[in-house]
Formats: sequence, C-alpha cells, structure tokens
Amino acid sequence: MKKCIINGVVITMDDSRNIIEDGFVIIDGNEISEIGNMKDLKVSGDMDVIDARGGIVMPGFVNCHTHISMSVFRGLGEDMPDRLRRYMFPMEDELLDEEMVGIGARLSLIELIQGGVTTFCDMYYFEDEVAKAVRDFGMRAVLGETILSKPSPDSSEAYGGIEYAKRFISKWKGDSLITPAFAPHAPYTCDDQHLMEIKKLADELDVPITMHLSEMLHEMEEFDSKYGKTPIKHLEDIGFLSERLIAAHLVYVDDEDIEVLRRNGVGAAHNVVANAKSGRKVSPAPAMHKAGMNVGLGTDGPMSGNHQDILSLLGYYTKIQKQAALDNRICPAVEAVELGTIGGARVLGMADEIGSIEIGKKADIIIIDTSAPNIQPIYDYYSAIVYAAHPHNVVMTMVNGSVLMSDRKVLVQDEDRLIDEVREVSKRISRFARELDQRARL
Amino acid sequence: MKKCIINGVVITMDDSRNIIEDGFVIIDGNEISEIGNMKDLKVSGDMDVIDARGGIVMPGFVNCHTHISMSVFRGLGEDMPDRLRRYMFPMEDELLDEEMVGIGARLSLIELIQGGVTTFCDMYYFEDEVAKAVRDFGMRAVLGETILSKPSPDSSEAYGGIEYAKRFISKWKGDSLITPAFAPHAPYTCDDQHLMEIKKLADELDVPITMHLSEMLHEMEEFDSKYGKTPIKHLEDIGFLSERLIAAHLVYVDDEDIEVLRRNGVGAAHNVVANAKSGRKVSPAPAMHKAGMNVGLGTDGPMSGNHQDILSLLGYYTKIQKQAALDNRICPAVEAVELGTIGGARVLGMADEIGSIEIGKKADIIIIDTSAPNIQPIYDYYSAIVYAAHPHNVVMTMVNGSVLMSDRKVLVQDEDRLIDEVREVSKRISRFARELDQRARL
Repeated sequence: MKKCIINGVVITMDDSRNIIEDGFVIIDGNEISEIGNMKDLKVSGDMDVIDARGGIVMPGFVNCHTHISMSVFRGLGEDMPDRLRRYMFPMEDELLDEEMVGIGARLSLIELIQGGVTTFCDMYYFEDEVAKAVRDFGMRAVLGETILSKPSPDSSEAYGGIEYAKRFISKWKGDSLITPAFAPHAPYTCDDQHLMEIKKLADELDVPITMHLSEMLHEMEEFDSKYGKTPIKHLEDIGFLSERLIAAHLVYVDDEDIEVLRRNGVGAAHNVVANAKSGRKVSPAPAMHKAGMNVGLGTDGPMSGNHQDILSLLGYYTKIQKQAALDNRICPAVEAVELGTIGGARVLGMADEIGSIEIGKKADIIIIDTSAPNIQPIYDYYSAIVYAAHPHNVVMTMVNGSVLMSDRKVLVQDEDRLIDEVREVSKRISRFARELDQRARL
Repeated sequence: MKKCIINGVVITMDDSRNIIEDGFVIIDGNEISEIGNMKDLKVSGDMDVIDARGGIVMPGFVNCHTHISMSVFRGLGEDMPDRLRRYMFPMEDELLDEEMVGIGARLSLIELIQGGVTTFCDMYYFEDEVAKAVRDFGMRAVLGETILSKPSPDSSEAYGGIEYAKRFISKWKGDSLITPAFAPHAPYTCDDQHLMEIKKLADELDVPITMHLSEMLHEMEEFDSKYGKTPIKHLEDIGFLSERLIAAHLVYVDDEDIEVLRRNGVGAAHNVVANAKSGRKVSPAPAMHKAGMNVGLGTDGPMSGNHQDILSLLGYYTKIQKQAALDNRICPAVEAVELGTIGGARVLGMADEIGSIEIGKKADIIIIDTSAPNIQPIYDYYSAIVYAAHPHNVVMTMVNGSVLMSDRKVLVQDEDRLIDEVREVSKRISRFARELDQRARL
C-alpha cells in the first residue's frame, strides 16, 4: 500500500532547494517514489492519504550527536561546575544498568519523534539496549558503544568497549535502520594504539566511528604539551582521520584544523546548545561549513543540552553565530535547515539515503502545522521553521515510510506507562544523588 | 465563586523562593487568598477546582518589551540587513492601519497566552487598538503609544504621539488590567525638550514611560559626539530618568551606566533573543541584576525575536550569558525564572500586584504539564522550567483570576477565524512587499 502526503508545502532540501508550494509526495514501501504539484496528482484507491493541510512537508531532522539514555539523569546537578564528577561518573559506575539505559532511550525516542527527528547518532554504554529500543520504535540511528581507557559501566576491563562493539556490530550490521558503530570516547581517553586498532576494525567491518573531539580545554592543553599540536593534527598524523569519523563538538579548532578535517572528509556534529550551556566558546561551525566540510547539528546528551529535538536548536545556531560575529547577515535560516537535515545526513555518511525529499530516497518525512498562532503569517518558509516554529508544531513523523507519530500522538509506545517507569527510575537516582551528597560532605 | 488549583508543585517565586511540592492555591475573585499543602486543603462546594495533576503551578510570565501588532509582519525580509528600511518603515508609513494593528495584536495575544505570558509591556502605533484587543482577551498589559520626532503611522505631525498618548491615557487610566503609558521611541528619535515634556506629563498623570535605550551603535556614537557622554548619562543629567522608566535593550551599557540606572530606579527590559538575532553584542544583563537593578525579559517585536513567549527565552538567557562569560556557573536556572516573573513585575512597577504566588496578589497563574517526555524526569523544578520545558507544555493560563486558556485551548478568541484574517492581511503585505522590491530595483 502506497502512502501519499497531500496539500503540503514541500521543502525538498534538494541541491536546488526546490520548494513545491502546493505539493504532494508519494511513498512506495520505504522510499519516496513521486513528488509533484497537487494539480498533477492522481490518487489511486490503494493509497493511504495523509493530508498536510497546507503545512510544511520536509525531510526529518538529523541529530548528529547525543547520548539518549542519559535522559533519566536530565536536570541533575544543574548549573554545578562539578556535576559530571559529583553525580554523573559515580552514577554511571554504580547505578547504571541495562534497564535504565533502555528506559532512558525510550523516553528520548518519544521526544525525538515528537520533535521531528528521524535519524540520530548515539554513543553510550549498554548500547545494545539502545538498539533494541530503536528497533522497537522503528527509528533510524547510528549507534556506537563507548570505548574508554578504563573500566566502564558495562565492562570490567580497560578498552572492554572494543569487544562489546565487535559483538554489537556483528549483531546489528546489515539492519535496515540501525548502523552500528565504534565510539571511542575522546582522544584524551583512548590512546593512539587503541584508536588505530579501532580504525582498522572500522575499515574491515565498514562501519562509522564517532568520537568527541577538540571539545575540552584540558584536551587541547594535553596535546599541545605532549605533541606541540592540536588533537586534530595529531590524529591526522597517526592516520586516524577519515570519512568514517563523525566528530562531535569541535569547539577549539583553528583554520588549519578545519583544513585538516576537510581534506580527510571528517563530519562535524556541532552541539550549539550544549556548548553554550557548558560555558564553552562559540564553535566556528559556519567557517567549517563555508570551507566545504560536512556539518550537522547535535543536541549532545540530555544532561548537557536537555532537549533532544533539533528544531529548537536551529534558532540557537543562527542567533549565537550572528551575535558572535556581530553581523545579522550570516547564518541565514536556510543554512540552519540545511545543517539540521541534509547536512546532518552527510555527516553520518547517509546523504544518498536521507536528508532530503527526493525520488529514490528513504521516506523520512515530517509535517509541520503552519496554522499555529506562533507561526502565522509566513513570508519565508525557512524563517518560519527556524525562527517561529516550536517542536510541538511537528504533527507527523515518518521514518522509512512508517508513520511513527500522527496528530502529535506517538503510535509506537504507551507514553503514560513509560512516564511511570521513568518516575520510578528517577526515585532511585534521587536517592543515590542524596547518598553522593552525603559522601561529598564527609 | 472561588477557584482552587489542586495537586500542583507551587513555585511561588516569593522572596524565600518557597516551593510547595504538593500544594494548592485558592483564588477569590481576582486575588490569591490561600496557598498551602494539599493535606491541609478543605475544598468547599462553592469552589471551581482546577487539577494541576502534579504539574508546576507558577506565576505567569512577564514580557517587558514587545510590539505585538508586528506579528502580521513576522518573518518578512528575514536575515536582511536593511529589512527595517526596505520593508518595515514603508509598510508602517503606507500600509499600517487600525485593522492591521488589531489583527496583529490578537494573533500575538493567543501566542502570549499559549506560552504562559500573563502581563506584557507594548509600544506601537494605533495603541488604542491594542488596548481594545487586550481588554477583549482579559490580559494584563502596560501599553504605550509611540512618540517620534517625525510623522508616524497614526499622526501627521512630529511628536503627534504625545497628543495621542494623552487621549489614550485619559481613556484607559484606572482600568483594572491596562496601564496606559508614554512610549517615546528612543533618545535619538525624540529631542530633550520633548522627552522632558513627556516626563512632566507622566509625573502629572502618574503613568509609566517605556523607551528603547542604548540599543544602537549609531545612538552611542551620536551621544558621544554631541555630548561626550552615553545616552544614559545624558538622560540623567537632563532629569529624565526615574522609576517610571522601563528601558528596553540596554545593550551598550558600561558599569557607570549601570550605576546611573540603578540609582534612578530605571527598570531594564532585556531582549536576549532579539539582540542575538540582530547581531548585537551580549547585554550585561546579569551585571545589572547583580548591581541591584530591576531586570526583566522581553521578546521585542515579532519581526525581531519572532517568538512572543518568555518561556523559550529563559534558556537563551542563561546559555548566552554562560557562553559569553565562559563560565557555566553563572545565571543559574532560578535566575532566569526570576527575571521572567517577579523581575519583570518589578521592571513594570507591578511587583506589589503580580510576579509571584503570594496571598493578596492578583491571580496571574500558569500550569506547566510536567508529565511530558521532554520534561521528565525532574530533579530540579527551575531546571525543568528553563532547560526542558517548551511553550506547549503550558496547559493553563489564568489572568486576574480568569482562566484564559485551559487544556491548551484559548477560550477567549476563535483561533481559526483569526488565522483566516491573518492570512488575508498577509496577502496584502506580500503584495506590498513585492511592490517595494520593484521600487528597490528601479
């Protein structure tokens, strides 16, 4: 049974930024099979019709960096400088288990779908639990098991994540929606030897690598004192950089770093809100974009950026960059939409399959209701998306041809039951946080 | 008939920042008459019960600076450096009329109410139309007719706004919800003589003054070259500053300016998003707050900030300031909530009446649904409001004891009919924009 989205303003995000003001999109199975103007549409009886009612029909958003399971910790120790060391690391060491990872993942999946995200790139522990949740929801994702130079929540040995990742990749490789990946944590938490082992394995298994990079001042200082170079230049020298790499953050990068990243085809996951909230300097993401790098947007984990949707990040991207440059002309709305869709798809190495509404691409499509009082009137569709829309204006989310949310209702999960589970988990976390507070006082 | 909000987490925003985890609020007429813990509640039969279902019950947000009627122009000429001169000023001169101002006001009023704003401070032309809309909706507002040193959309003479404002003030003075005001546009568009005439009239009539101040680089240069001083110091010297003044923007202020503003009791309307979007530097709003000034948040008009709600500004405030200071400890969530509620009330000179949930204050109260997947779990209520909530999580908005929105439905306006009117007006505006584009090409 084909599906047909009718009466939409189709923002294709194809190379010519084609917009069809009164358009339709036909979906055959999991692929987009036809796009056109309503006057040319012939609806046949075997079509499931979805009426966009004049709303915006656009590619789903791509969240290039997050740790979705951390939603169970969202808001814990907020605004505290030592929240990671005080709460997060002890929690992960002593409390985190498979069940908690699964519940956190499901909670975030609802938020992602409600916000119009159709693909995301995740790295965390017990990543197999994330994969199972993603499979149950029918989302598209790149999922990486985190690898650390010390024991981790799901491994008693240093670099145990490599073995976990090998099992995980062998289990999920070839899945139509899940792309398993390696996720070394960062160049300051994985040594060169293991990074290169991961690189070799990723090449052999043909999977992506995702890693935090040039995010921390102490990271920059460490590489400067050890090698007299930036981490990016060091990683190029050892041969780690490639098109496989999805690099998250890239806050402290200079022009030479950008050229290194570009010539190696490294994708950038720019976490605008998380970086601001943690008091880091403004990332030169527009310069990376201008230099021809693949740049997408990420939320970072829910303890860092809190929100998991990309739509509410778009305005942050343009405004923070305009303010940093003292120039309101830079980063126009269309650039933010590009980064949030096709740009993100390129970063994840998926631009042939997703990121735009084009014939032959997978049907990852959302509808934004444009009749809402916060959006009307509309003089420019990109402006409406970036500056006026809120996540709740997304009314339909389709991944791989399947409708995951319709009329704001997520169809694939009992929301109330999940929220009850989240409340129970959060009670355990609260108790443990109080215990950690006591330990800190001793 | 009394109203009773039950089963809420009552965030009072009183001086001790008291939070009642399982609380109720009783409203008698337009005032808050009782606040307490659910276990002590005796519901009587003559009470209209509003069940908060565990949600956050808090004072409504205060938007200290906007031009709500400009919503009809929202998104026009986006990201263009000359949008004001190219579109806005000709539109206001040649197209703007009473009907358009009224429609724009009604559109924004829906957005304000849906976003949990219960009081706002507005300045525009045909302000009487705004007042009529505010009265029809039952909102609370400070409304100022704009005064300019040249003819304006509703006046054929320079400074004609003064006469308009006098009539406007005499019509609305004493209204229970509307506080009429003078709104000289800016110190660079009104001369000293007229500013002091306005000041004298405002003292006589006992009304507020609202004005743009220290917003523009050209303004700073003009005052520096004319007087060798900042506009703020000049205005103190001529005797214009007082507690009556609600000063919008205050971007280019130094420490001495802050001391001048503080000692004169001037309130600051900080427009965090509009300032960022227009590529201005980060305002030292936290320094003003720390110095003991009254500081609130404003959206600026819908062409500048696009959104009219305050809730989605709270995160911008903390994140932009943390990033500018390279310090994640500053501007904690509670500070943002303070600025958005009681801080704004102080700026408008209304802190005795609104801005917190306290016995004897007017019942301007909202409920935020905390069961939403983007908010759960909650470890800190201020964090949940600032970093996790979206405007659509506001489910009930009450102004002066009257429920204006219940279960997300605005009760006081037929939304669909209004959106149809907005679409019609936007067609006229689009046609005129095309005409202006043609003129520009000639």
